[in-house]
Amino acid sequence: MKVLETADAMRAWSEEQRRADKSIGFVPTMGALHEGHASLMRAAAKGNDIAIASIFVNPTQFAPHEDFDKYPRTWDADLKICEDCGVVAIYAPRKDAIYPPGYATYVNVEGLSEGLCGVTRPIFFRGVATVVTKLFNAVHPHRAYFGQKDAQQCAVIRRMTLDLEFGIEIVILPTVREADGLAMSSRNRYLSAEERTRALCLSRSLFGAEQMLRDGVRDAKSIVDFVRDGMAEVQIDYVELVDADTMQPVEHIEKPSVLAVAAFVGPARLIDNVVLNPK
Amino acid sequence: MKVLETADAMRAWSEEQRRADKSIGFVPTMGALHEGHASLMRAAAKGNDIAIASIFVNPTQFAPHEDFDKYPRTWDADLKICEDCGVVAIYAPRKDAIYPPGYATYVNVEGLSEGLCGVTRPIFFRGVATVVTKLFNAVHPHRAYFGQKDAQQCAVIRRMTLDLEFGIEIVILPTVREADGLAMSSRNRYLSAEERTRALCLSRSLFGAEQMLRDGVRDAKSIVDFVRDGMAEVQIDYVELVDADTMQPVEHIEKPSVLAVAAFVGPARLIDNVVLNPK
Repeated sequence: MKVLETADAMRAWSEEQRRADKSIGFVPTMGALHEGHASLMRAAAKGNDIAIASIFVNPTQFAPHEDFDKYPRTWDADLKICEDCGVVAIYAPRKDAIYPPGYATYVNVEGLSEGLCGVTRPIFFRGVATVVTKLFNAVHPHRAYFGQKDAQQCAVIRRMTLDLEFGIEIVILPTVREADGLAMSSRNRYLSAEERTRALCLSRSLFGAEQMLRDGVRDAKSIVDFVRDGMAEVQIDYVELVDADTMQPVEHIEKPSVLAVAAFVGPARLIDNVVLNPK
Repeated sequence: MKVLETADAMRAWSEEQRRADKSIGFVPTMGALHEGHASLMRAAAKGNDIAIASIFVNPTQFAPHEDFDKYPRTWDADLKICEDCGVVAIYAPRKDAIYPPGYATYVNVEGLSEGLCGVTRPIFFRGVATVVTKLFNAVHPHRAYFGQKDAQQCAVIRRMTLDLEFGIEIVILPTVREADGLAMSSRNRYLSAEERTRALCLSRSLFGAEQMLRDGVRDAKSIVDFVRDGMAEVQIDYVELVDADTMQPVEHIEKPSVLAVAAFVGPARLIDNVVLNPK
């Protein structure tokens, strides 16, 4: 497995593959890989001639008070997971090369970046859109893979890819969960055993909402109230039912809509969501 | 000469050229081509296997009160100039395809975009950086060519290309002038004969400043005052001596610095600049 550390090296290698008529699937990650990432990498390897993953903890999507410094770095374990999933090259740029002195350029997806996670994390999606642009420009893939767990990020990346005309197909894959329902997240490592147990109220409440939908409930307020009640034991950031593309609030479920939650559990801020499809 | 109207068609054609190991030089324009553009296109044709130009009057770089609607469109003459300069393909996207409903993504080069022209035209460089990103993603060139007449735009594009890691070489070529010194601009068409004569005070004052430099003057204030005096017959927007990379004011010329002016002359807002090199 090849490890490329500069954009120039990555770009040259990628162009070589394209010239040889190889399709490239790309999975951008911040490392601390888990089965969610693995599912994306396996799909990238299966759906393309070549799978590339990036590992880069992106400072511009963390606010100063957030967990950039303590974000888990598990390089050796990450390499093993990538290799097992059929990834043939890892792009792992250095922070100083990605954001050199005088760095000044940011990509902003207006509107989509402002609600939900954008309220508590106002620079988050600007950082994500910017670094994904840079990664896309270095890796130049045919397809890029993201997890539905980050529903708002998926919407931002889809919009940005369309708007900036990257010509890259964005593939969104389902959230991967632990056996007890907890959505997999690199930040689950922050949880104590007690917090880990309390954190289950997120997925449990979302699954309850899915049952309400099956029982015929369609109005957002009933569903959101139910989920908020179910999450009483954690500090709720938001519970919202939104349109999957625009991330704007939905009052009544008429098409597939995203029920998204965020909560602080001990030192971790966790997010989760389910798609409520009325059909 | 090929005319491509969609990003997909442009991208496919460009990738075909790259696979055939052809280098691509790209000149983005808003049409209304003049000898300044022609000099860029000839350089692109000479310095690369293939030269591509784009013709697109970009609405997001015009404020509502500005001249988007009346900006000159001279399609047939433009094609002739492109062909004569050795351009083999023109990318001419439709406005609705470039900015479809729901469009939300903007590229912003912070700091560099705010002074000089950014004061009078606060959304201008955001629009430029955004559309150039989109054009780069569709055309995917090896080199892109811009004119020094738009000094601040050159700084913004250079910074953006570096920051977003496009892997594209930015080539800046000298301002092309009419025989009497007026910097060529598509907006010169807006000038009456009388305004055309008055507009000469911009280049005349800049040439005077070059003479001051040769005479040993190094302080910005003396030079800027001289130029302001020389431009008394037009409505000055700004006269500033700035660093060529950061566009920050320079008080004393110690390295090549840009003396940039902007003025309203009748219906036209004109810009011009010279590089003052103390060596």
